[in-house]
Amino acid sequence: MEENDTLETKGLSRRQVITGAGVLAAGAAVGRLTAWPSVASASGGSTEKWPWPYVKLDPTVTAELAYNEWYRLFCGGAVISSVFSQLREKVGEPYKSFPIDSFVYMEGGVVGWGTICGSNNGAALVANMITGPRIAGGEAGHHMSSDMLEWYSNASMPVFVPKTPKINPDQIPHTVSESPLCHVSVGRWMKEANKPIGSPERKDRCARVAASVAFHLVEMLNAWKDGKYEPASSWSPVGDFGINAQQNCTACHGSDVPTPPMAKKS
Amino acid sequence: MEENDTLETKGLSRRQVITGAGVLAAGAAVGRLTAWPSVASASGGSTEKWPWPYVKLDPTVTAELAYNEWYRLFCGGAVISSVFSQLREKVGEPYKSFPIDSFVYMEGGVVGWGTICGSNNGAALVANMITGPRIAGGEAGHHMSSDMLEWYSNASMPVFVPKTPKINPDQIPHTVSESPLCHVSVGRWMKEANKPIGSPERKDRCARVAASVAFHLVEMLNAWKDGKYEPASSWSPVGDFGINAQQNCTACHGSDVPTPPMAKKS
Repeated sequence: MEENDTLETKGLSRRQVITGAGVLAAGAAVGRLTAWPSVASASGGSTEKWPWPYVKLDPTVTAELAYNEWYRLFCGGAVISSVFSQLREKVGEPYKSFPIDSFVYMEGGVVGWGTICGSNNGAALVANMITGPRIAGGEAGHHMSSDMLEWYSNASMPVFVPKTPKINPDQIPHTVSESPLCHVSVGRWMKEANKPIGSPERKDRCARVAASVAFHLVEMLNAWKDGKYEPASSWSPVGDFGINAQQNCTACHGSDVPTPPMAKKS
Repeated sequence: MEENDTLETKGLSRRQVITGAGVLAAGAAVGRLTAWPSVASASGGSTEKWPWPYVKLDPTVTAELAYNEWYRLFCGGAVISSVFSQLREKVGEPYKSFPIDSFVYMEGGVVGWGTICGSNNGAALVANMITGPRIAGGEAGHHMSSDMLEWYSNASMPVFVPKTPKINPDQIPHTVSESPLCHVSVGRWMKEANKPIGSPERKDRCARVAASVAFHLVEMLNAWKDGKYEPASSWSPVGDFGINAQQNCTACHGSDVPTPPMAKKS
């Protein structure tokens, strides 16, 4: 689908880190190309051997699946299903025994509480399930998750346009969330579109967001499979700022961004 | 462990909903006792038959496991492992083939971004995996997830005290997050304790938070197994306020809480 061929760049309204406390460095690619996939060790359960077998998927096909699955499983489940349903067919186990449908719980930022957008939660799950957890030596999934959170925050969403949209694309404006949180992402869009949460337009917007995330996820996984995945995010909140955090400090704190207690320099 | 026998009540510094835009009703139990467990229908994958077999667990044993697993898997993975590792032993499948370790990604509010506390993310996963997703007719997991988010937000954390703490309990103050987000929960505690993110005290605090959540999760699952689970949260953000949201509106919005576009009353 030509319109979506360049999601990697097209979705980014800007690559700069969102201005927070005025202390954030630019989030440019940092040249951490590593020999992916790394082989992760097993650790207990019968499916805890990484990486899981992966065959490259078509990003557009995956996004179309996510778009349609959203209307059944909502954001997190849709992203997981769009990738794993294909791998159930093309690979088999361990995807066949992975319980996709329970992840409907990720909807609405976890059962409607507006925390992390389910698309990001689901994408992080998929990336870490396939490439393996960092505690077993597989760091790609950790990096892909961070890349997605940053990409999502900066993208003019929704990026993906389905082949047969349920709603005319003219009714779906684009907004930049500057945050990976459902409440902020949906809220900013609702304000711009002037549409309520229960409107067909808002639902289709979120289905397209899930599709956009699924598309970009498969871009990263395919690059990883080819040994060409390179982490794009340089966001290191604990190391740089002393607390687990997003990049948009001022969105909640205004100009009064607190400084966390920091370790003494030795 | 006597000190933790009454987590249900002891952890709550107050049961009232956190004051937001001045429009929130009290979050008292709402008498929605249902005949749990309901039988959920299968839907595709080999493990997508609900409810999953569950035997009642000891909350204290589970919390101790979560406390220790935190030092290996961090918050989300620790909660999942504390329940599923026991069920691997006591029940077998489908727990043996569930890939626990990949959920290290939930750490620090999803790879350090400070969104939803991994303990809440992991608890929601466990509840929905065992009791089944709401789209398959199992609503208990959805309710338990919401209950946990509310309980966590109101609890004086950490509630659970391990038998053999790595850090003297006197060094671990208690704080109320008023939010299910990692950044807020950890940030408030760090401010009170005046300890940096990398301190042994902060780590032990988060290990105890994971343990506290695991304890309460098993309390709910055991009640469900006995047919006595009753949803405690009445938080209905979409229906009542028109957007997926937490309850602490003013924490980010201050006094200028926006009103989302609402559906026209017919």
